[in-house]
Amino acid sequence: MTLLTPAALDELKSALPGAWTQDATDMAPWLTEWRGRWTGQSPLLLQPRTTQEVARAIEICARHGIAVVTQGGGTGLVGGQIPHGEILLSTRKLRTVRDVTPLDDAMTVEAGVTLQEAQQLARENDRYFPLSLAAEGSATIGGVISTNAGGTAVLRYGVMRDLVLGIEAVMPDGQVFNGLKRLRKDNTGYDLKQLLIGAEGTLGVITAATLKLFPIMRSRATAIVGLDSHHDAVTLLARAKAETGGGVEAFELMKRLGMSLVLKNIPDTREPLESTPAWYVLIELASGEPGGADAAMERLLTSAFEEGLINDAAIAQNDAQKAAFWRLREEHSAGLKPEGGGWKHDVSVPVSRIADFIDEASAAVEKFHPGCRISVFGHVGDGNLHYDVIPGVGEDVQAFIGRWMEGSEVVHDVVARYNGSISAEHGLGRLKTDEARRYKAALEVSMMSAVRASLDPKRIMNPAVLF
Amino acid sequence: MTLLTPAALDELKSALPGAWTQDATDMAPWLTEWRGRWTGQSPLLLQPRTTQEVARAIEICARHGIAVVTQGGGTGLVGGQIPHGEILLSTRKLRTVRDVTPLDDAMTVEAGVTLQEAQQLARENDRYFPLSLAAEGSATIGGVISTNAGGTAVLRYGVMRDLVLGIEAVMPDGQVFNGLKRLRKDNTGYDLKQLLIGAEGTLGVITAATLKLFPIMRSRATAIVGLDSHHDAVTLLARAKAETGGGVEAFELMKRLGMSLVLKNIPDTREPLESTPAWYVLIELASGEPGGADAAMERLLTSAFEEGLINDAAIAQNDAQKAAFWRLREEHSAGLKPEGGGWKHDVSVPVSRIADFIDEASAAVEKFHPGCRISVFGHVGDGNLHYDVIPGVGEDVQAFIGRWMEGSEVVHDVVARYNGSISAEHGLGRLKTDEARRYKAALEVSMMSAVRASLDPKRIMNPAVLF
Repeated sequence: MTLLTPAALDELKSALPGAWTQDATDMAPWLTEWRGRWTGQSPLLLQPRTTQEVARAIEICARHGIAVVTQGGGTGLVGGQIPHGEILLSTRKLRTVRDVTPLDDAMTVEAGVTLQEAQQLARENDRYFPLSLAAEGSATIGGVISTNAGGTAVLRYGVMRDLVLGIEAVMPDGQVFNGLKRLRKDNTGYDLKQLLIGAEGTLGVITAATLKLFPIMRSRATAIVGLDSHHDAVTLLARAKAETGGGVEAFELMKRLGMSLVLKNIPDTREPLESTPAWYVLIELASGEPGGADAAMERLLTSAFEEGLINDAAIAQNDAQKAAFWRLREEHSAGLKPEGGGWKHDVSVPVSRIADFIDEASAAVEKFHPGCRISVFGHVGDGNLHYDVIPGVGEDVQAFIGRWMEGSEVVHDVVARYNGSISAEHGLGRLKTDEARRYKAALEVSMMSAVRASLDPKRIMNPAVLF
Repeated sequence: MTLLTPAALDELKSALPGAWTQDATDMAPWLTEWRGRWTGQSPLLLQPRTTQEVARAIEICARHGIAVVTQGGGTGLVGGQIPHGEILLSTRKLRTVRDVTPLDDAMTVEAGVTLQEAQQLARENDRYFPLSLAAEGSATIGGVISTNAGGTAVLRYGVMRDLVLGIEAVMPDGQVFNGLKRLRKDNTGYDLKQLLIGAEGTLGVITAATLKLFPIMRSRATAIVGLDSHHDAVTLLARAKAETGGGVEAFELMKRLGMSLVLKNIPDTREPLESTPAWYVLIELASGEPGGADAAMERLLTSAFEEGLINDAAIAQNDAQKAAFWRLREEHSAGLKPEGGGWKHDVSVPVSRIADFIDEASAAVEKFHPGCRISVFGHVGDGNLHYDVIPGVGEDVQAFIGRWMEGSEVVHDVVARYNGSISAEHGLGRLKTDEARRYKAALEVSMMSAVRASLDPKRIMNPAVLF
């Protein structure tokens, strides 16, 4: 990796007047991962304001072979946005809304627009942009595309990859790829934007994107149901999909342990059901018809009761109750924290294998570390579980955290046996790139390296991340 | 391009016993494009029965640098499946259904399974596989993935790219890429399968795929409506999407000329509306709720009448009537044929620009060739029009056909001004690869070439197609 040379520094400074800093205090917030897990170093922060400025910067870096890390909102969970000696290029100042064309169900925004702002812009145009995740107030469009973000609406609308119609990017040689399109069909060669989506900044700098919009749903119904067994959850999901013709917007599984820790550790929460079931599912249905979702929810829960798939249910009667139900799901990470932290995993397996996976992983983890407690919650429809292992009550927390890597290997080995993924929605970043080599076929790694080398022969774009 | 050498021929024959032929009579049907537009040549037809046989064949070709054209059902419209000296490798004998897992909404089939068989397999498992097109009885899964096929269900379910969860392929060096996954989320590097989808056989041989399945809709309503102006069609579509929450499955525009030629030239067809409107739209709505689609159609048409968006409408009262409506759309190509053939185009533009595009393209074409007749039909929701120009009544047909290339340039130049695509769903093949260079940015072409060279350095896979 070539670091910044004085000649390149001079060129960059004159090419981007007023858009750079080397001041340690100014740069500090950009170099520290938001949870404080990593602190990086960088000789220079660039904050270009236009695609042309990004192109100028990358052209200079390419010519000198200087490595660059691109950062969006900085909310990534795997450290891919933190430089360790590379130049840091922030896309936050690319803030222009290029156009919104409701009749195309499309809008084009620059990379630094936040996810929340994009959602808001869609709403103002009587449309819906579905991607939604906890960090949406800070996460940028450039970042959520580069990491192919997931979140809570994937079941119906897909991951970020499915929501992008076009991309503008500065390629590793400084040329601008103008792939901004509002087309729904275009079969004229390889779909180059697919390479940039989820590439974690290794193939170019995304500067703008055309996003898909959707109609606003006219009704929405939310319920929490109780299950005796997690093995019933997938059957219930299949029934919900069939009965609503795909109208299920969320289907979030929660285990008793996680729920009880939320109720114990998070103020102003209360048990949603009169029974205390072993497993909960939060279900959200939506329909284009006024009242349609409520009617569908009643039909679904009635038939699920009759078949013995669920043993208890509460339907939210108003927005406050709906928010309270969602809070029980969203506070799961916070609810675990006071118990001493844990070994966290963001894994996916085929939907149909979720319950078996939970059983097998839990048996393996309990054998590896007897007395630990296991919290499982996640998006059943995506096969995506947040599988967290926390210390037993009264256990030494530091010693427990010290076994994280070994414990993760136990979990991820089971994931591999289920043909699953060790990073369902967070990406690999610096945290998981090496670990991923253990599970990926050598051919896949070599194909990725070959494609990367063909577009970035000097490997200047986020060199420490991916293959 | 290196053609078959005696040494390579011997190796291939012994590696694939019983799965090759050099007999001209046996090979003839494989070498003639199905409409008879092109006839190719090939020294050898291989019909491997397993992925391992494909791998063995490609490994030998790679070692000797021998070029290969892969063919599926042979129904392509741009000649990409016809060899001109290359070895011909057919995937039709890869016929195994590997698995169907309804709880994953997924099934894995080999490349030679036909699209119709795949649809049928889904139905037998109480699921729906939405890709549908005229050639579905012959078109194979390998082929529709390699060409990223579209068809009539794209508006709701997307193109083939959106319907693939995983791919198995033999890469240009003969190694097997095992990307068969039933995962909905996997963020562990570049999504390599995206490269193979729509690559028209230039990056490897697709041998099997895992496909996404959907719930079967419980109700479906079909109508034909009459419009005074094509400018109202996009507004009507937006209203239909909003009112149904995305429940529009088809929205097919047809111009009076095409309809009148269908009524004139195709037996057993009749005018669907009492009026004779300038434009027709065939609308199909679907709902997860029994009766839901019928109710939604009535609501939609009532409000569209009130606003003056439509001037006439007929709702299909039974399956026979529904089939009759769809026939009017499906026979559009056949209806034009007796008029002497025409200059055919498969183009896309942003949905919102469709009506303006029709106006501008028609003005340009009428100026270029006064007296010609213009038929326009297509998928409004995809921005995809089949824009066909036919000779004036009594005009010399041969002379007219002789101006096809020049006439297409007129149409495609307008497409380019609308940031559209000159091949929305058919691909480039041999027919359009050269023409596409005229409209594509040099950077895009060079990126595609670089990626291709990184995976197929000897350029043995369908060398004459794409960049």
